[in-house]
Amino acid sequence: MSHHVLIIGAVALGPKAASRFKRLDPDSTVTMIDKDTRISYGGCGIPYYVSGDVSDSSELTATSYHMTRDTAFFRDVKGVEVKTGVEALAIDRAAKTVHVKDLATGREEDLSYDKLVIATGAWPRRLPVPGNELPGVHLVANLDNAESIRAAVTAGGVERAVVIGAGFIGLEMAEALADMWDVETTVIEAAPRILPRNVSPALSDMALAHIREKGVTVHLAETVQAIEGDGKVERIVTNKRVIETDLVVMAVGVVPNSDLAARAGLAVSPRGGILVDEGLRTSDPDIFAGGDCVEITNLITGKPFFLPMGSMANRQGRVIGTNLAGGRDVFKGAVGSYAVKLFEKAVSGAGLTLEDALREGLDATSALVVQLDRAHFYPGKELMTLELVVERGSRRVLGIQGLCAAGDALVGRIGAVAAMMPFSPTVDDVSNLEYPYSPPFASAMDVINTVGNAADNILAGRNLGIPPESFAPLWEEGTCYFLDCREASDAAPLLERFPGKWHNIPQGHLARHLDEVPRDQPVVLVCNTGARSYESFITLAHDGRSNVQNILGGMAALRALGIDPK
Amino acid sequence: MSHHVLIIGAVALGPKAASRFKRLDPDSTVTMIDKDTRISYGGCGIPYYVSGDVSDSSELTATSYHMTRDTAFFRDVKGVEVKTGVEALAIDRAAKTVHVKDLATGREEDLSYDKLVIATGAWPRRLPVPGNELPGVHLVANLDNAESIRAAVTAGGVERAVVIGAGFIGLEMAEALADMWDVETTVIEAAPRILPRNVSPALSDMALAHIREKGVTVHLAETVQAIEGDGKVERIVTNKRVIETDLVVMAVGVVPNSDLAARAGLAVSPRGGILVDEGLRTSDPDIFAGGDCVEITNLITGKPFFLPMGSMANRQGRVIGTNLAGGRDVFKGAVGSYAVKLFEKAVSGAGLTLEDALREGLDATSALVVQLDRAHFYPGKELMTLELVVERGSRRVLGIQGLCAAGDALVGRIGAVAAMMPFSPTVDDVSNLEYPYSPPFASAMDVINTVGNAADNILAGRNLGIPPESFAPLWEEGTCYFLDCREASDAAPLLERFPGKWHNIPQGHLARHLDEVPRDQPVVLVCNTGARSYESFITLAHDGRSNVQNILGGMAALRALGIDPK
Repeated sequence: MSHHVLIIGAVALGPKAASRFKRLDPDSTVTMIDKDTRISYGGCGIPYYVSGDVSDSSELTATSYHMTRDTAFFRDVKGVEVKTGVEALAIDRAAKTVHVKDLATGREEDLSYDKLVIATGAWPRRLPVPGNELPGVHLVANLDNAESIRAAVTAGGVERAVVIGAGFIGLEMAEALADMWDVETTVIEAAPRILPRNVSPALSDMALAHIREKGVTVHLAETVQAIEGDGKVERIVTNKRVIETDLVVMAVGVVPNSDLAARAGLAVSPRGGILVDEGLRTSDPDIFAGGDCVEITNLITGKPFFLPMGSMANRQGRVIGTNLAGGRDVFKGAVGSYAVKLFEKAVSGAGLTLEDALREGLDATSALVVQLDRAHFYPGKELMTLELVVERGSRRVLGIQGLCAAGDALVGRIGAVAAMMPFSPTVDDVSNLEYPYSPPFASAMDVINTVGNAADNILAGRNLGIPPESFAPLWEEGTCYFLDCREASDAAPLLERFPGKWHNIPQGHLARHLDEVPRDQPVVLVCNTGARSYESFITLAHDGRSNVQNILGGMAALRALGIDPK
Repeated sequence: MSHHVLIIGAVALGPKAASRFKRLDPDSTVTMIDKDTRISYGGCGIPYYVSGDVSDSSELTATSYHMTRDTAFFRDVKGVEVKTGVEALAIDRAAKTVHVKDLATGREEDLSYDKLVIATGAWPRRLPVPGNELPGVHLVANLDNAESIRAAVTAGGVERAVVIGAGFIGLEMAEALADMWDVETTVIEAAPRILPRNVSPALSDMALAHIREKGVTVHLAETVQAIEGDGKVERIVTNKRVIETDLVVMAVGVVPNSDLAARAGLAVSPRGGILVDEGLRTSDPDIFAGGDCVEITNLITGKPFFLPMGSMANRQGRVIGTNLAGGRDVFKGAVGSYAVKLFEKAVSGAGLTLEDALREGLDATSALVVQLDRAHFYPGKELMTLELVVERGSRRVLGIQGLCAAGDALVGRIGAVAAMMPFSPTVDDVSNLEYPYSPPFASAMDVINTVGNAADNILAGRNLGIPPESFAPLWEEGTCYFLDCREASDAAPLLERFPGKWHNIPQGHLARHLDEVPRDQPVVLVCNTGARSYESFITLAHDGRSNVQNILGGMAALRALGIDPK
């Protein structure tokens, strides 16, 4: 039975659902409307357009075979009618019509539907402070914003920029401005660390050290109170300082565009996401919704969450397209995987951070390891830091996060764990994860298996590991006995700088020099990456010591954190 | 209860089992013997030592923190006694002793054990042809072989080399010789294609085209009949030709070293692998075995198979170490993931090829896609080819293989599917696999999801895709109507070269030009990657055509295969 499908929103989910549906049901008709005039663009590419990596904004609206995804493309190639510059004002569910307005002509009309798809996306939050709409204050919402920012920068009048928000988009924009245009860039984040919801303090601090090294100024735990300027932005006032600036990028999260749905009486969560079932139907079975305007199930917690990502919109769009055609496809939810490139490093993760897991009331802990990303003898190897979050008792894997200069290699490991997560894997599944091995790409005992093994040892009580950021306070406090487990030559510089405070017994010698380690003082073990200090931990535990702590990730983690004993 | 563990073999599994056991049970004692004098080396690194990527063979026996893993290291750092140059001659299971011989002194003795570990590995097959032991004929078995080959090459007397066998090691050695030392290198393979057991004909031919482009001569379906020379190798005689050569590398597979186990009455498979249970115990509960000398369970077929890889040895070594200490760790088997670097491309896979699956009697098919490995607008993108092997009916994923110039990116996708495979994933799990998305690392609809979607369409009968290597015979036969679905400008060169034989209707125009496509002739559709020809397929199917075939992977696959309509 052919019918007419109306789709509100033509950026990511809408076009995917429309195309899939038309392939399955060519006799049906589809009308897709969008209030913008440009449609079907890769919004995630905006930072790379601003940086200049993507030379022209038209590339973001092109297919991989260089056709522009415009109204004509959808009409001719996909058989989908698109009306741009048309805003949906209200849904009449009883009449099965949507009242719309042509923004150019002001003309209003009712469009009918048999099935409706709401793909209204999300809109960036605008910080409620004075001056938040001054010229020069930019959101990162659509191609118009992207072009305004790039035009401002290329015009040459931007020497200083402030990015508000240190989430993915904020940091990507900071990189674009600082790295490619040499703009003196400052990031302001209200949380006490960058990527606050995505990684642990240790990984966040490592990423922060790298960004600062690249010349970006970052102010944490600082809130913007006003944006000031005479006709255009000139400065930002925070609770701690005033920052002169020529341009502001506001990237403080997005809010689902669910007003239209809510006004039509569809179920919407308290946080504003449209509620859908596994078939992506709203509370009205003739209305589907997906993408940035809905909440989906978090497959780790079983609770609804908000995951505004282009990858989600695409996959959900296919499910909706199938179900519009009478299919029974399901979207069960997501584990929340992500990746972000920060200058020469990548950060990636999936599932819960340790902080998230504890907040959920789970009895969680985490293992952090630093190991080379491929065979240690292979040229071009990089250190990879991985943190695996696990539940005690059940041994279930709750999340994984990591940082590495080899982005593809990191994303591969995170992707492998993300792929398993819907199946409720345990620590043992990570220990035995069969990452394809060959020296140019992995280690025989790969870093992903090592982090599983490390978690296994922690759960078994065989390794009292403490995160690397614990080092600094312990060092300043000065009551612990700091024992370097590396070879004498590696330890020599620190021994020389800190006589009496830094100690060295190479791990291989420890069993024969146990008496040199005080029994009445807490011991902190450090090696290069945490592997040998773990072995020293075992030797001391076997000797009956219970007051020993092992710095996970060792000197590699300390250095990445920017911590240097001094 | 402390006890004494004896380990036969000190390359990969032995050292891992020993170290793990000693960490768990420091009061016990471990003796590890090896008939070689060099131990604990990364044998998988041999091709990279021969190439010079690894400058000194000592790097292959070093830890990642630059300590040499020799007898002193195991004694001091791991608490393990190692006897090198000592061969195990016989196991007396009743007396719990192993009769050994010191190869330097000739002295024999009995070593007792409470628990024994057999880690005797595998040995390369030596082809049973005349001259197979002539000087200049090398196996790739240990560091001595590696040093002999590199010494021969660096001495300058090697202008031509022949590698027998086009499996992983053979091709890695061919690359080492040809790429780094400019040796005129010929590979001879008895099977009709390279990597015959690892990839489909399409992927094999793509890899072959690349290797040949890099200057390696490859002879397929050709068998070596003799190796000849006066005091040293001078030529190889095959069933088709005589090849002059200065050096021969024989890489025709390995055979498990299970004689010792068999003679002791332990259960050994007809193919020579020692049989072990999930705890890696042999048929004698006091004797463990693992690594290249055992058979393990193939998690896809449920049958035993042989997977001689350093990664397996390391993971099995940990399991044995745990179980020696009274633990209950299990090694359930493997899906058989692998990766291999071939000049500027990587090939990787996991699970069964389509050929394997059909041979197993499974009702299998496969989907092949070619798509960019990251956002199409992001610089540095590469085309990735993936083939997903699936079972009809159950929709179960049986295997995945791929090829890409971005090796880490390819290995990441294969690793993600390999990670899921023990959980018996379906096509839908691949369609929804949550590979971490960000434009620098993945696509919003990532290539891994696309290959899942393609398999879904094939299983639903929505895409009659045929593998790209089917093109050449159809083209030569000349009875099909070849329809190029790309835009006119893309199709123009072929239209001009083949008037009347090559046709073009851009996919977006097809619905309005159906009458131009003959109804009485089989139609073959081609586009750039297989995406638009799939859409054209649907348009034609909707028009009632049943004699249409779609070339999977499109022109990208044809070009990679070296097929060019001419």
